[in-house]
Amino acid sequence: MGGNSFGTAFKVTTWGESHGRAVGVVVDGVPAGLSLSEKDIQRELDRRRPGSSRVTSPRRELDRVEILSGVFRGKTLGTPISMLVWNRDVDSRPYELIKRKPRPGHADLTYWLKYGHVDYRGGGRASARETVGRVAAGAIAKKLLGLKRVEILGHTIEAAGVSVGREIKPAQIKRYAEKNEMRCADPKTAKKMLQAVLDAASRGDTTGGVVEVIALNVPAGLGEPVFDKLDADLAKAMMSIGAVKAVEMGAGRDFSTMLGSEANDPISVRRGRIVTLTNKAGGILGGISTGMPIRVRITVKPPSSIRKPQTTVDLETWKETELKLAGRFDPNLCPRVVPVAEAMMAIVLADHMLRAGIINPNQV
Amino acid sequence: MGGNSFGTAFKVTTWGESHGRAVGVVVDGVPAGLSLSEKDIQRELDRRRPGSSRVTSPRRELDRVEILSGVFRGKTLGTPISMLVWNRDVDSRPYELIKRKPRPGHADLTYWLKYGHVDYRGGGRASARETVGRVAAGAIAKKLLGLKRVEILGHTIEAAGVSVGREIKPAQIKRYAEKNEMRCADPKTAKKMLQAVLDAASRGDTTGGVVEVIALNVPAGLGEPVFDKLDADLAKAMMSIGAVKAVEMGAGRDFSTMLGSEANDPISVRRGRIVTLTNKAGGILGGISTGMPIRVRITVKPPSSIRKPQTTVDLETWKETELKLAGRFDPNLCPRVVPVAEAMMAIVLADHMLRAGIINPNQV
Amino acid sequence: MGGNSFGTAFKVTTWGESHGRAVGVVVDGVPAGLSLSEKDIQRELDRRRPGSSRVTSPRRELDRVEILSGVFRGKTLGTPISMLVWNRDVDSRPYELIKRKPRPGHADLTYWLKYGHVDYRGGGRASARETVGRVAAGAIAKKLLGLKRVEILGHTIEAAGVSVGREIKPAQIKRYAEKNEMRCADPKTAKKMLQAVLDAASRGDTTGGVVEVIALNVPAGLGEPVFDKLDADLAKAMMSIGAVKAVEMGAGRDFSTMLGSEANDPISVRRGRIVTLTNKAGGILGGISTGMPIRVRITVKPPSSIRKPQTTVDLETWKETELKLAGRFDPNLCPRVVPVAEAMMAIVLADHMLRAGIINPNQV
Amino acid sequence: MGGNSFGTAFKVTTWGESHGRAVGVVVDGVPAGLSLSEKDIQRELDRRRPGSSRVTSPRRELDRVEILSGVFRGKTLGTPISMLVWNRDVDSRPYELIKRKPRPGHADLTYWLKYGHVDYRGGGRASARETVGRVAAGAIAKKLLGLKRVEILGHTIEAAGVSVGREIKPAQIKRYAEKNEMRCADPKTAKKMLQAVLDAASRGDTTGGVVEVIALNVPAGLGEPVFDKLDADLAKAMMSIGAVKAVEMGAGRDFSTMLGSEANDPISVRRGRIVTLTNKAGGILGGISTGMPIRVRITVKPPSSIRKPQTTVDLETWKETELKLAGRFDPNLCPRVVPVAEAMMAIVLADHMLRAGIINPNQV
Repeated sequence: MGGNSFGTAFKVTTWGESHGRAVGVVVDGVPAGLSLSEKDIQRELDRRRPGSSRVTSPRRELDRVEILSGVFRGKTLGTPISMLVWNRDVDSRPYELIKRKPRPGHADLTYWLKYGHVDYRGGGRASARETVGRVAAGAIAKKLLGLKRVEILGHTIEAAGVSVGREIKPAQIKRYAEKNEMRCADPKTAKKMLQAVLDAASRGDTTGGVVEVIALNVPAGLGEPVFDKLDADLAKAMMSIGAVKAVEMGAGRDFSTMLGSEANDPISVRRGRIVTLTNKAGGILGGISTGMPIRVRITVKPPSSIRKPQTTVDLETWKETELKLAGRFDPNLCPRVVPVAEAMMAIVLADHMLRAGIINPNQV
Repeated sequence: MGGNSFGTAFKVTTWGESHGRAVGVVVDGVPAGLSLSEKDIQRELDRRRPGSSRVTSPRRELDRVEILSGVFRGKTLGTPISMLVWNRDVDSRPYELIKRKPRPGHADLTYWLKYGHVDYRGGGRASARETVGRVAAGAIAKKLLGLKRVEILGHTIEAAGVSVGREIKPAQIKRYAEKNEMRCADPKTAKKMLQAVLDAASRGDTTGGVVEVIALNVPAGLGEPVFDKLDADLAKAMMSIGAVKAVEMGAGRDFSTMLGSEANDPISVRRGRIVTLTNKAGGILGGISTGMPIRVRITVKPPSSIRKPQTTVDLETWKETELKLAGRFDPNLCPRVVPVAEAMMAIVLADHMLRAGIINPNQV
Repeated sequence: MGGNSFGTAFKVTTWGESHGRAVGVVVDGVPAGLSLSEKDIQRELDRRRPGSSRVTSPRRELDRVEILSGVFRGKTLGTPISMLVWNRDVDSRPYELIKRKPRPGHADLTYWLKYGHVDYRGGGRASARETVGRVAAGAIAKKLLGLKRVEILGHTIEAAGVSVGREIKPAQIKRYAEKNEMRCADPKTAKKMLQAVLDAASRGDTTGGVVEVIALNVPAGLGEPVFDKLDADLAKAMMSIGAVKAVEMGAGRDFSTMLGSEANDPISVRRGRIVTLTNKAGGILGGISTGMPIRVRITVKPPSSIRKPQTTVDLETWKETELKLAGRFDPNLCPRVVPVAEAMMAIVLADHMLRAGIINPNQV
Repeated sequence: MGGNSFGTAFKVTTWGESHGRAVGVVVDGVPAGLSLSEKDIQRELDRRRPGSSRVTSPRRELDRVEILSGVFRGKTLGTPISMLVWNRDVDSRPYELIKRKPRPGHADLTYWLKYGHVDYRGGGRASARETVGRVAAGAIAKKLLGLKRVEILGHTIEAAGVSVGREIKPAQIKRYAEKNEMRCADPKTAKKMLQAVLDAASRGDTTGGVVEVIALNVPAGLGEPVFDKLDADLAKAMMSIGAVKAVEMGAGRDFSTMLGSEANDPISVRRGRIVTLTNKAGGILGGISTGMPIRVRITVKPPSSIRKPQTTVDLETWKETELKLAGRFDPNLCPRVVPVAEAMMAIVLADHMLRAGIINPNQV
């Protein structure tokens, strides 16, 4: 029973396998009258494209998005927006190997267990290529958020054991995060991260890390308790990204050792607006946005495809066997996860702004 | 736009304010023919009831559940099951204070911002009392899971800075977790935890912690990529619990510093069944259950109601003011979160077992 | 897999069996700040109550509604509103007969086929008593619609072969429909209808009819093509009422013999507002409201419980057998369907006004 | 707030404007392992294609479907199936006229009222071309139904005032319905219908009619009371088709003049299976399928585009004006509605077979 849609008012349905004909997305619920062009989408897609750094896999895709519906003369129509990107640089031969041998840490095994019939080529639907649709939808969500001056910023704060170790201000993220291959907003740390990632890669191994995503100028009042809380929906959105294994809101994991008197953000008034003087809550209380910046951290596991030999099972002989992979792999996923996590944040916020009536659902 | 329902095939809708007439839940999607009595529900509700330990608030509620529909002669009918618990021990006077002064760290402020008109009595809908409905629904989910021998175990693994510091085996959780006020499966650590919690409480302060929930005998193949992945739905379910600020699957946050060769669980065969030799993934790969135990950790923040004076805003004068709370409060939420987190895990698993066709949706 | 919820933004979940402890409803998605009391609900419930005329069954229920949540000091809170009515006048003995013998034309057979385990008492969940929840939810929807001056009017236009035979003006419906047992807005026809209904009843038989529901002052722009069109949602809402077997929008069935030049409503301007000069479309074009009155007709089949002997099967011996019913039955359902159909119309319109952003979903 | 998805377990999302780049659909929830090729889809699309008879518009589209995802080596993968058809024969010039002048009876007016910014070319999203996606999705649904030998048959039973006037047996529908331009299963009546349709067309006018859709071998137990009843979902599905203004189940509108003793279908046993001896109910009781054939009739209004002059409003001058249309139009929609109505019936049944656990949702 399909689970390929996300959102209630801003509804995203992605489709496509890594080595199928194309990958794409349908976005339903975008109000009419929003300026939108393929350039708006392409800008975001270019950020997630593989082959753009030493940290990511060398797959070469131009990833030209095509908008097939929902836009007329540069404006949205209020009808569903269908977008796709053709798959071109597809070499399925390296994957013949894993047809019978599921890769440890990968979805190969569970897709086989669930569906029987599996597209083993390039990870099929479980490939990171699936995120093309998320990023394209997120680009539309960002345009919508822009109407209310909401901004989304993502950056890598830890990779291969190297951490920035302190909170980074939004201005610094804007200035530096996109300037290096790690998408780390602290240039010095970025260099160390990259070195640590490449060191592990040179040993045939991969590394994990942590990505932070921030939303600025978020209106207060977003989130629908008690289940569709803003943080609950963000948690689902983030955890649905492949390789993400932990989601933290605000101070997150660190709340476990705080006292209440440390954890509570004092409330005050600044320029006629209610604010909190600190923001450990990460901009959300009781599942509803406070108006302070929203802050989410996600842990990204090391890519499961490694060159080191691993133990697995041959699905035909039903015996233990050794698996030794070749082919193109990512040494670290953080920089590529950044635009995807931003997209998911944008989608959740656009959805809740529509649900809360802050954006008119018919026309903007 | 209401967000008080959870689940697709096993649908839970909770309702009720802390000091309203009652709290309750409607569960839709339970197949016909399941044995169910009020005793099955009561057992779980008794575990979450306040007033049962020094760690939780002294509110005294008998919390007698009444099943109003969906069950006839001890069997479910396939129709919605409506359950409620009357609110009796309601003293709203202490809350007059916060009518104008939102408590830092609490939902008071955001409910006021979102809804204008607010039930300030006892936290209203944002109160932990809302979880009565979750636990009652979870009790039905557990009965359904029992048909497939799936078991759910929850326990406190860290509180007030005191941690068990190692993985606890299921047998030990079953034996010890319910035997102490902290619901910690290591009796020695439990004592230290309790002491640390009470120490902080004696200074008018509260403490956080970490709760782990495990599911055993989970069939492989649960979870619907790419958005309704099993871990994504678990993340939403857990983050929707008040006070939860982080959700980790399997090794969770620790994946950030692992190498791929450490993170991947080798695949093998044991007794004619495919298994992984370790379980860092926490029983889920690519959003689909592997058949290994599911392991989720959640970080619980310190309760926001503390006796220490705090800075807030008077919503009438619009000026900063000091808030000094009295009344009944929880020093630490972990032990009470345990049955709620178990309930949410049970609900998610029942939902996905129905979605995957593993439980027949018409009759069992 | 439960189907007991209706609506996207204004979400109604009903529960309860005819001879269970109670019947009720949870309404999620009502904005905060709406004036609401039990009197508002009771007024509508009193209209659907059985025992109020010779046309309906003599079951005597006071049907006192209790609001259990979501309202504080006469205003809605933005949280779910739970309401119930206790079942009191329950005599299950006459139903022992049908435990093994499904009534022709009734849901007995299909519930047994689907769920196995069945509540045969009083029709269980398939009883008209289930509509208590619909009418209570509809009363809230009507309050919301009242904010925009939208009015809903229902009346019987045909029963037992006696038809009013012409379009009735809203003013006449308001004046006369509630004044007679048939809820027919033409007093003369009402008398003939009643006589025809009672004649058939005296022969142990039942009769069908047609009910019309109209909405006035509906804003243009409601409805979400291409599936959640306003008429599509109305069709589902109406067809989900027990005994309804046909739904017609505007001229409905009569469109089949019209020419395009007869069917099209000319468009014009009146008092600075675009109108259609006729309204064969029934206020909806392309699934979106035009601003003209919405007009729906539903065909109500004769109640299946008749006193005449009928052929059925004994579910134990698996042999054909004769069924001869006693007990309390309705000779004609139209007058009781009127408030239910109004409620469903109100629910659909409230849902779409929230979806279209015409009512603010957070607070009114 | 988008309404372009239909279904719960078998989820269909259509997209595309008449004169945009393409029209298409994503189908989510198809189990893995189903044999599926573009030929399966094409066969159904060819049936709905315009330009194939004198009754339908002369637009010439090859309408070649492309499956872009979800199928690998002739079998479904359990992942979403994305399909599209490119728009080629697009001549938007005739539509410049209606840019300012909404056509009476058409969606032009309401789209303009709702969305402001409108695609007036060829009806945009409100065009019958949108049904390409429905028919493509329906073709997959039919394949799924075929696994359980469920068959869907559609035919025209009335057009331009000419009616077949009696119930047609399934065998006759199979033999004759696809053999004439009206899709009428009675060859003699078909000729008269066609003549009446062409007569009106020669006078610049259009005609309405009635289409019947039947499902054979439907398993008992489909439908989820009390809102997602099988007939309620069918009513929504059918009413969501453009130009449909009435939906009748079984005897439908005729129930209004029946007595209960006429309306009830006697229950009996034939070949060890419970049956009803007549089928006035149309195969559904209490919202659940009985196992008898499902029978739905829909009224199709005359196409709103006529050559006769009509009164409308100039949206710029805000004055009444005359509209005289040229271009390619359909004289009667019934034959083209047949495959669309079949598709919607198939989608609803596939959805409910998955919901009821009759088809395994993971793999077939």
